[in-house]
Amino acid sequence: MNQDYITADQWSIIEEGFEKERVQSSESLFSLGNGAMGQRANFEENYSGETFQGSYIAGVYYPDKTRVGWWKNGYPEYFAKVLNAPNWIGINVYVDEEALDLNTCKSVSGFRRELNMKEGWYQRSFEATLPNDVSVRVKATRFLSLDLDEIGAIRFEVTPLSGDVTIKFVPYLDSSITNEDSNWDDKFWNTTSVSSEGNQAFIEAHTMKTNFETCTFMQSDLLHNGKAVHAEPSVIQKELWVGHQYEHKTAKGETLSLQKLGGYTVSRNHKADALIAAAKEAMKNASSLGFETLMANQKKAWSAIWEMSDISIEGDVKAQQGIRFNIFHLNQTYLGRDSRLNIGPKGFTGEKYGGSTYWDTEAYCIPFYMATKDHSVARNLLTYRYNHLEKAIENGEKLGFTDGAALYPMVTMNGEECHNEWEITFEEIHRNGAIAFAIYNYYRYTGDYSYIPEMGLEVLIGISRFWGQRATFSTHKDKYVILGVTGPNEYENNVNNNWYTNYIAKWCLQYTLEQLNKVKEGYPEDYDRIIGHTGLKEFETEEWETIAGQLYFPYSEEHNVFLQQDGFLDKELVTVADLDKSQRPINQKWSWDRILRSPYIKQADVLQGFYLFEDHFSLEELERHFDFYEPFTVHESSLSPCVHSIQAAKLDRMDQAYTFYLRTSRLDLDDYNKEVHEGLHITSMAGTWMSIVEGFGGLRIVEDKLSFTPRIPKEWEAYSFKINFRNRILKVRISHEDVSLELEGKEEMSLRVHGKRVVLAPGKPVSV
Amino acid sequence: MNQDYITADQWSIIEEGFEKERVQSSESLFSLGNGAMGQRANFEENYSGETFQGSYIAGVYYPDKTRVGWWKNGYPEYFAKVLNAPNWIGINVYVDEEALDLNTCKSVSGFRRELNMKEGWYQRSFEATLPNDVSVRVKATRFLSLDLDEIGAIRFEVTPLSGDVTIKFVPYLDSSITNEDSNWDDKFWNTTSVSSEGNQAFIEAHTMKTNFETCTFMQSDLLHNGKAVHAEPSVIQKELWVGHQYEHKTAKGETLSLQKLGGYTVSRNHKADALIAAAKEAMKNASSLGFETLMANQKKAWSAIWEMSDISIEGDVKAQQGIRFNIFHLNQTYLGRDSRLNIGPKGFTGEKYGGSTYWDTEAYCIPFYMATKDHSVARNLLTYRYNHLEKAIENGEKLGFTDGAALYPMVTMNGEECHNEWEITFEEIHRNGAIAFAIYNYYRYTGDYSYIPEMGLEVLIGISRFWGQRATFSTHKDKYVILGVTGPNEYENNVNNNWYTNYIAKWCLQYTLEQLNKVKEGYPEDYDRIIGHTGLKEFETEEWETIAGQLYFPYSEEHNVFLQQDGFLDKELVTVADLDKSQRPINQKWSWDRILRSPYIKQADVLQGFYLFEDHFSLEELERHFDFYEPFTVHESSLSPCVHSIQAAKLDRMDQAYTFYLRTSRLDLDDYNKEVHEGLHITSMAGTWMSIVEGFGGLRIVEDKLSFTPRIPKEWEAYSFKINFRNRILKVRISHEDVSLELEGKEEMSLRVHGKRVVLAPGKPVSV
Repeated sequence: MNQDYITADQWSIIEEGFEKERVQSSESLFSLGNGAMGQRANFEENYSGETFQGSYIAGVYYPDKTRVGWWKNGYPEYFAKVLNAPNWIGINVYVDEEALDLNTCKSVSGFRRELNMKEGWYQRSFEATLPNDVSVRVKATRFLSLDLDEIGAIRFEVTPLSGDVTIKFVPYLDSSITNEDSNWDDKFWNTTSVSSEGNQAFIEAHTMKTNFETCTFMQSDLLHNGKAVHAEPSVIQKELWVGHQYEHKTAKGETLSLQKLGGYTVSRNHKADALIAAAKEAMKNASSLGFETLMANQKKAWSAIWEMSDISIEGDVKAQQGIRFNIFHLNQTYLGRDSRLNIGPKGFTGEKYGGSTYWDTEAYCIPFYMATKDHSVARNLLTYRYNHLEKAIENGEKLGFTDGAALYPMVTMNGEECHNEWEITFEEIHRNGAIAFAIYNYYRYTGDYSYIPEMGLEVLIGISRFWGQRATFSTHKDKYVILGVTGPNEYENNVNNNWYTNYIAKWCLQYTLEQLNKVKEGYPEDYDRIIGHTGLKEFETEEWETIAGQLYFPYSEEHNVFLQQDGFLDKELVTVADLDKSQRPINQKWSWDRILRSPYIKQADVLQGFYLFEDHFSLEELERHFDFYEPFTVHESSLSPCVHSIQAAKLDRMDQAYTFYLRTSRLDLDDYNKEVHEGLHITSMAGTWMSIVEGFGGLRIVEDKLSFTPRIPKEWEAYSFKINFRNRILKVRISHEDVSLELEGKEEMSLRVHGKRVVLAPGKPVSV
Repeated sequence: MNQDYITADQWSIIEEGFEKERVQSSESLFSLGNGAMGQRANFEENYSGETFQGSYIAGVYYPDKTRVGWWKNGYPEYFAKVLNAPNWIGINVYVDEEALDLNTCKSVSGFRRELNMKEGWYQRSFEATLPNDVSVRVKATRFLSLDLDEIGAIRFEVTPLSGDVTIKFVPYLDSSITNEDSNWDDKFWNTTSVSSEGNQAFIEAHTMKTNFETCTFMQSDLLHNGKAVHAEPSVIQKELWVGHQYEHKTAKGETLSLQKLGGYTVSRNHKADALIAAAKEAMKNASSLGFETLMANQKKAWSAIWEMSDISIEGDVKAQQGIRFNIFHLNQTYLGRDSRLNIGPKGFTGEKYGGSTYWDTEAYCIPFYMATKDHSVARNLLTYRYNHLEKAIENGEKLGFTDGAALYPMVTMNGEECHNEWEITFEEIHRNGAIAFAIYNYYRYTGDYSYIPEMGLEVLIGISRFWGQRATFSTHKDKYVILGVTGPNEYENNVNNNWYTNYIAKWCLQYTLEQLNKVKEGYPEDYDRIIGHTGLKEFETEEWETIAGQLYFPYSEEHNVFLQQDGFLDKELVTVADLDKSQRPINQKWSWDRILRSPYIKQADVLQGFYLFEDHFSLEELERHFDFYEPFTVHESSLSPCVHSIQAAKLDRMDQAYTFYLRTSRLDLDDYNKEVHEGLHITSMAGTWMSIVEGFGGLRIVEDKLSFTPRIPKEWEAYSFKINFRNRILKVRISHEDVSLELEGKEEMSLRVHGKRVVLAPGKPVSV
């Protein structure tokens, strides 16, 4: 844990007291998003201290040059940079002509931020004495509407405390923004128009190269003691900036407020030449409701989300706050409404990593969205990959694969690979397996087989063709081998026979063969269409069968475990416990060669296989592998603790499971990895959800039915969650005494608790 | 072979006929250099066609940003870019106001280039009809003085053929130059003054960041039919450019010539504020001699070089031309006069690769310089590394090594690492071994032990400390292992137990231990100084002994060969002969992952060990390893064919040896690797020399004496070379009939030919 300033609270993230060093961390933690846009918790008023300005629009990116010193064939042309978008939240504030700037105020007291997760708003309040000795109270409330997802709303209130003053508000739009991670001083945005009409203003700008057209807009209204002041603003207009100036005398104790609506209309959703019109329409809809109604609707919308996705924990406020923080940000990032979008690893909270889609989506996020949303949301995520199949085949071709072999990109925005480390882009091929697994997992969980004949089988064929070509035969071993890969543990590169990769490759081949048979029998028309479209030949499927049957898996007789890769045992096997703490995190302390030749594991690798294919192995096997690998694991990926928490729970090591749980759920709140200022770790937040539902709750699908093996950390009194299983809603509460289950809807449901069959009737809670 | 337009000639490189597509290739092939500066064979007059402009100053570089997408700890701060320097050769030519430009002439005939290697000059002549229908004959002669190495000279002659005309010459200097490989649009040069005095002009400019101050200068004289025309030029001056304009009426058949002296004075050799004065002094010295005397001196200087370093081949003009081309360019690149310089991989012929020093110097170039120059030249090259020892230790520290462990950089200008691919920078650590081997080789060849107590032992200690820390103990193998390396074959990255690396590491440790004992006994004062300075502890040397004794070497019982690395046999072992030709060169056709998992070898790897340590292995072992590895070798490094040629000769496979010889000696002339336009492969040219002297000639040092096992390709009648062995000059001529040996100097020399002892008396040739 590297920070501890967030006040523990059931439903809110709260910071009290103004400390400049915490500004960037809080800008991440208090970020807002509504699936379509979002921004860091930057101050509305000017702040001259250290800050990381960031506003983001979903699906809008820039193809940054991926120039590297020594180009390798097959490198992608660009790196998809998550772009800092024009700023619409800005409101410069002057009190008696003195600029309000928390960095220069003589004193700041009562500073408080609250991110109210239950209701979906963010508020900041403080009292400050400006350099001109005038004191004011400020309260700024902001939210991004879930209902009208092009609209955000701000109410900025100033109350003079030391005497009568003149307050000047200058709400503005600004497109002179850059990225923090801008490497080559490139210009990302081209501003084409800056205009103002009455109390509205607009900046039209498009991204360079990708040509996403956007209109950033605002509308402002002035209120004095809550009553509208009908004041025509004066306009200040610059090349990349437009502001409205409102000035009003305000007596001591009275409150002057600026209400600002703002946001983006984007050519992804509107005609490029109608963006201003669309902006006007959006503002008309919003202002016809008014701030209060918008806020009331916001609370309702979040209430509906929580109704389905909340996990409540009794008796442990920090654990409670952690899980809600995770669920809140997942919902801020992706709501499943737009199948062109995906779950960016930093959501709307930062720029790092680039691209929107990693294997995180399939391996970590889909279970959360399946269980807490309508199944169409998960199906949209699968459809996203189906829509990218052709690009995945092109990507395979760039690397020399042929005949429809698909290699899905490691990082993508639109289906094209946009990451350029050879050891990742070319070698971290297990991502293909996660995509196939998600298809299996989706059907296993939702029971909706239709995706497979409609789309999934083609994806599976492309993926299996890749594995079929990527595996090679070793005469020496008399087995098929997969050489030169990077496994989930990215602290090993270019290894041979990574067990996880080989295992999931074999599984993909077998699963594809099974689905081919199933579709052939059950959906002959689809089958014919697919065979026609893919041109699948019999020799291919025969080859897949051969490879699956003869794939090599490194194994140590001595330790009785599968080996992470060939040669793993040649390392100096010093456990993390015996590693000097000053050397941690090794990814900040060690050069790459040293990391590579060490035994240290960034995140679950062999154990990732045991997680996905848990039912293929006995509890004893899991225990042996957990005991062998976890001691070498440094958990320097945000995706690591959750898997280990789930497995520790399964092994009934509840203390360890709880420690891992805290680490995953409060990773950002407590800044375990010393990087929260760069943004939040969104995708691993779904892993936190899993660590409760699958880990402590022990949720599994066994023979098409739900099964629970509930456990509870001793620190908790009880916890409860809801899941949508095959369109039936089940509420589960687990305490030290019992497990209570309650089913919504009309049909009864049969399930298992601790292996025992329970039949639930709707509306009749059962306690086990 | 990808081109075949160079006329075969014993002593010259000749191109006949003007073809625009060949311009860039010829610009490389006809490059000039004098160890201190050089330039590609760009035309003096303006050329609007495709050209690659390049002028270079030894030791002047730019630290380019080495930004990569994902920074890894330990990456160097910069990449040392070989900088295109201001141009001093330019002479714009106008005939009746029409610009002479070979790209726009109505016709060009009799175009001929000659690089006269024997005498060290370059000449270009042609007849051309300009767009205004005026015809002229042009002859341009250029050389870079070996005696006055800041001076180059040009005589540019124009003879009107179609009538009386007015000829205008505009000799100029130009600092508005950029690099072809300029990635980030950086500005490399900052021009601080542009000036003109009489018939002289100066541009002062310094490199950004590195602040090398330079003065580029020129002086011009006009001659009419060989007689000086005393004409004050008019001056044209721009921000980064200065030209002198000479205009003269010239009758049909008469010749107007412009003689231009030019070059650079640099703050590496002069005070920064005295560069113009130094330039004036250089021009005064040169012009007091005059063009003819300068040229005569040039011929003498080259004659002296050839006297010692020539290899003559009788009966095979192409082979003859090839070896002389190689020897010529080696001497143009590095003359051993300045121990701050080294042998850049592209010399003064291009920008690619960057940096000046690779392991090429120690592994390939030192034998050539030892045998064809005074031994001080090779000693200078060793001293260069001694001077960089501290930086090598710092480099080791950046990667986590401690206590004086030295890792020499893979690429450097000033001792700092300046290359940033992790698999090379961090892992291609065998370079350390080549540096130690060069120390051994220098003593073996020259008999000069003094370098070791004076400097070499400290280098050896630093290197052995590195190996001592880099090797780790594998409990599993019960041996020391070296994990995560890249061997000489860069088509494998991050492999374990690369046999070559392990072998040279073991040898380094043992050789260092031996030298420690030897210096302790023979040079006790040096020993005490060194122990004091390095703080070497007994436990360190004990550890080195342990590691050397227990290092692991991968071996295949089945094939009875050492394995290139762990797991090599898991590959699909399809030989190059069975690889579709359309797939070659694989480094242009395949993605990196495919190259890595293939068995294909870029350049000698295991065989590099057999080359360096030939005497450790039997002929049968060499044969077995050659037969195992050569069939997988694609020779896509310029350093590959020479080693294989030497080994094929040793195995008495003369046809194969000859094929490899042609490939190494005419690599650039015939453009085997499809990249001659980028510049020449300088360092591998020393390998060509080795392939004759060590390969065909069979030169070895056996028990402190020369030994020859001469062979001769059937295509040749005879060949002869000279070597300086321990300050005695031996001339060797090998024909199909006999070997004749002739010794210069005063002492007699005992040596072996085909294993038989021969005693040579000075001046008395012996035929064997």
